[in-house]
Amino acid sequence: MGIVLGPNQYGKAETRLVAVTREGDVHSIKDLTVSTALRGDLAATHLTGDNSEVLATDTQKNTVYAFAEQAPVGEIEDFALRLARHFVGAGRAITGARVRVDEHPWSRIGGNGHSFVQAGNEKRTTEVVVESDRAWVTSGVRDLVVLKTTGSEFRGFPRDRYTTLPETDDRVLATSVTARWRYQGDGIDWADSATAIRAALLDAFATKHSRSLQQTLYAMGEAVLLARPEVAEVSLSLPNKHHFAVDLSPFGLENRNEVFHAADRPYGLIEGTVLREDAEPPAPAWLP
Amino acid sequence: MGIVLGPNQYGKAETRLVAVTREGDVHSIKDLTVSTALRGDLAATHLTGDNSEVLATDTQKNTVYAFAEQAPVGEIEDFALRLARHFVGAGRAITGARVRVDEHPWSRIGGNGHSFVQAGNEKRTTEVVVESDRAWVTSGVRDLVVLKTTGSEFRGFPRDRYTTLPETDDRVLATSVTARWRYQGDGIDWADSATAIRAALLDAFATKHSRSLQQTLYAMGEAVLLARPEVAEVSLSLPNKHHFAVDLSPFGLENRNEVFHAADRPYGLIEGTVLREDAEPPAPAWLP
Amino acid sequence: MGIVLGPNQYGKAETRLVAVTREGDVHSIKDLTVSTALRGDLAATHLTGDNSEVLATDTQKNTVYAFAEQAPVGEIEDFALRLARHFVGAGRAITGARVRVDEHPWSRIGGNGHSFVQAGNEKRTTEVVVESDRAWVTSGVRDLVVLKTTGSEFRGFPRDRYTTLPETDDRVLATSVTARWRYQGDGIDWADSATAIRAALLDAFATKHSRSLQQTLYAMGEAVLLARPEVAEVSLSLPNKHHFAVDLSPFGLENRNEVFHAADRPYGLIEGTVLREDAEPPAPAWLP
Amino acid sequence: MGIVLGPNQYGKAETRLVAVTREGDVHSIKDLTVSTALRGDLAATHLTGDNSEVLATDTQKNTVYAFAEQAPVGEIEDFALRLARHFVGAGRAITGARVRVDEHPWSRIGGNGHSFVQAGNEKRTTEVVVESDRAWVTSGVRDLVVLKTTGSEFRGFPRDRYTTLPETDDRVLATSVTARWRYQGDGIDWADSATAIRAALLDAFATKHSRSLQQTLYAMGEAVLLARPEVAEVSLSLPNKHHFAVDLSPFGLENRNEVFHAADRPYGLIEGTVLREDAEPPAPAWLP
Repeated sequence: MGIVLGPNQYGKAETRLVAVTREGDVHSIKDLTVSTALRGDLAATHLTGDNSEVLATDTQKNTVYAFAEQAPVGEIEDFALRLARHFVGAGRAITGARVRVDEHPWSRIGGNGHSFVQAGNEKRTTEVVVESDRAWVTSGVRDLVVLKTTGSEFRGFPRDRYTTLPETDDRVLATSVTARWRYQGDGIDWADSATAIRAALLDAFATKHSRSLQQTLYAMGEAVLLARPEVAEVSLSLPNKHHFAVDLSPFGLENRNEVFHAADRPYGLIEGTVLREDAEPPAPAWLP
Repeated sequence: MGIVLGPNQYGKAETRLVAVTREGDVHSIKDLTVSTALRGDLAATHLTGDNSEVLATDTQKNTVYAFAEQAPVGEIEDFALRLARHFVGAGRAITGARVRVDEHPWSRIGGNGHSFVQAGNEKRTTEVVVESDRAWVTSGVRDLVVLKTTGSEFRGFPRDRYTTLPETDDRVLATSVTARWRYQGDGIDWADSATAIRAALLDAFATKHSRSLQQTLYAMGEAVLLARPEVAEVSLSLPNKHHFAVDLSPFGLENRNEVFHAADRPYGLIEGTVLREDAEPPAPAWLP
Repeated sequence: MGIVLGPNQYGKAETRLVAVTREGDVHSIKDLTVSTALRGDLAATHLTGDNSEVLATDTQKNTVYAFAEQAPVGEIEDFALRLARHFVGAGRAITGARVRVDEHPWSRIGGNGHSFVQAGNEKRTTEVVVESDRAWVTSGVRDLVVLKTTGSEFRGFPRDRYTTLPETDDRVLATSVTARWRYQGDGIDWADSATAIRAALLDAFATKHSRSLQQTLYAMGEAVLLARPEVAEVSLSLPNKHHFAVDLSPFGLENRNEVFHAADRPYGLIEGTVLREDAEPPAPAWLP
Repeated sequence: MGIVLGPNQYGKAETRLVAVTREGDVHSIKDLTVSTALRGDLAATHLTGDNSEVLATDTQKNTVYAFAEQAPVGEIEDFALRLARHFVGAGRAITGARVRVDEHPWSRIGGNGHSFVQAGNEKRTTEVVVESDRAWVTSGVRDLVVLKTTGSEFRGFPRDRYTTLPETDDRVLATSVTARWRYQGDGIDWADSATAIRAALLDAFATKHSRSLQQTLYAMGEAVLLARPEVAEVSLSLPNKHHFAVDLSPFGLENRNEVFHAADRPYGLIEGTVLREDAEPPAPAWLP
């Protein structure tokens, strides 16, 4: 039996673009990391090294920079869509494009309109897929780290031979939220939606009493769907950043749930999706 | 329309296990990072916080350590299978388990049977999926960094408005190989297979004249399939670690392809799979 | 000639402490990474393995946690001083202690008094040295990333055979500030001082017209010393996070200083100290 | 009282150079990360932005690449010395230069003379300081990770209120060695010396029975000094990569020192120097 080429894609990953817009003395910046991936009939380059349909990844990088000059970058979803649509139209063999953009936040300082401080490690993200004349937009947030000092318990779990964890009705709960929400419909105000979704995620984490991180995950996803009709589905990846109460009894001290060791590894990892029953199907899956 | 729970899973990620085996004065070590994920009917904990079917991630971690004591760890594929089969049988609601193991390599030093030096950053990996009485094994390698100083060209690619890359018939080609190969059949000697596959990957990279990194990718996958009948499919992710020849002409010097800037970002990213036409279907997809 | 033991120290690095304080329903958190190092006559353990004067690093870690329970953590400078003084008094051989603390910032969310979001990657830092009855306090900030889109030039530098950099009178200037300021005197309000110093650093970066990053460095240090009499010296490490204007001319586009490639490596690194002429001498140097 | 400029330096950090040498079909590579720093009378640029004595960091980077073309790179110590001497002679104001080089190791694959695999994460390092006509060379190794499964104990340490650590006469000992040795004298064969020193470090770690990591540190330094007369001093930084025996008794299992949790943080950190009594004084201290 033969050996064949299966699913494949290629592109330029992590092009670092900072775009400056000037309105008089007031400057604005967009600080983006852009990754492009293309798909199509690419058998020739794999099998014979014929590159006649391989839009070079260097060209993809150049295109990112050129597009940032040709028109204002705007919202990352719009910028990604412009790029993806360009690439799908750029070669005969290229039938699909996926563009990912991470946006790094900055705040103004100094009151002079041109100075900024990085506003944290959290990123606003988007991933756009275009195939033929269809487009799918999934946006999200990464490295949004949250913690609550009460309002979290974990009880009633099964105990087998290997279970030593005590039940608790009051623990510190912390996680680094990676959220991705899939849009459906048209005319979406991306910035407004992202702001509202982030607020819904934070509010649900903060206010929902948690019997498990899974319950919190579902509450966060549900809150987004209840607040924003333009969202079809929310996927969440929530590492449980364990905070273990330190046993201070050897020192004659009582730890009144006040002193915690923040552990690195291992960590619980809770992943799940919450969606509308009538959600449109998602974009075709891309590697990996 | 309603809001529902979609695909979900949970587990303990990155449990760091070092297991020592002693045969007289000769000790052996297994240095592993183990991640477990479980799947099943977990709606209760998501919707109501009822944890009666949630095998705690802490218990999963304990199980990893206990299993390492109860029997020799052996090959990572066997260890992962033992764990995954245990978890699928551990609770009524748990119907699937995925266990990932990274193995960190060590070499002996000192001639005394009990001293070791870490043998590089490269990891041998496996990912095992068990559902009911079926099992799938995918193994691989990560952080295998290779480079060739000739035998690589990139020409004949299309030129559009945004293309500036010159054609080259002699470039440095370097990549950090992430390979994953899916096994089929029984009675596989995991260690022997992993050693032979790694050798086939290296040999194909080194000796195949490369007209594109895609061609190299296909050649690497094909070499594995030709050499090892127990492999159904090979997936490769190959970042193009660009080495740019530095323009020395401003200094009155000719760069005879001798002096390169090793760039960090952006990087090309070439991903693809090579498989047997009659390969059995892969394991069910797990998040993410 | 003989071989002898030179300078040495030991301790516990990166103890991760999260301390919660509760005032009714309003909770506060201190999220700290604490590193302790001890010094003294430790020749015995080095030469013979006699550990009778080696306060175990595990004990040092326990002490960090116990001290967080015995009294409110308070400002990191006070916490570090308490720990360092304890260690110097803890053993006959220990004559010096250095305690470093990084504080990770959190902001409140949810309005319920017990929920928080991590407020960025920037850390407030301190390093306290205690020897006998003397103490030195150096505090600082790390990972404070700033950028200005104008008000920065770099001209008039010498040109030799290897110089290709064009002069510029308008460039993007960005850096990740690591600042350390040494206090002198008593009765310092650590929190108030840290807030004011951070503001002075940001303001100087933002508003000082920059002919070189060195000039900016000096201006930042000087601004702190002018604003805060309790500071004897400011040390700054400023990586020049290069933002290169992309050459868009091959695409028929003019880059009006709007589109930049944010480079990772290499980077300029500007380091320097600004101090009062009559500054008291600094703490004894510790490894490394 | 006035405010003055204190110690300062500047340069280009982490220039990534890969140099290829060709002898017929047999190619060799040097994969280096080079950081240069200059010192001198740099008050003008700090105080007024007068850059007439500031050899641009971009020029420093160019010089690194040009020097790699003008002559074979050779051993990193020689390459660093060539660069440092050039920089000290390059400007009137520059009176000192420090050049650091990390060398990343590669091994041959494929038998064709031009293919390579990265041989681990360990780096050979050097730091050269040149001032006027004097030069100091300190070389070393980083990320050399070693482990022994027996032959290590930790007993007899003092017990205070905060001590819970049990004594042990048989533990796993692991560390990531950062070693720096200072040379004195002339005519040193850098490659030969580095190979022999690495072997001495590994042998001492492996074979010296350890009552404390401090004792191991001293033994490693002493072994280097006994073996190599060209070394004046050895500085070692040894993080204690704790491997905690997992308590398996809750599962009815006995952990016969076979199953360990490899912890990330916190970690012990043992630092010290071992030197000849008659060692020449070291290089002037550079920031930081």
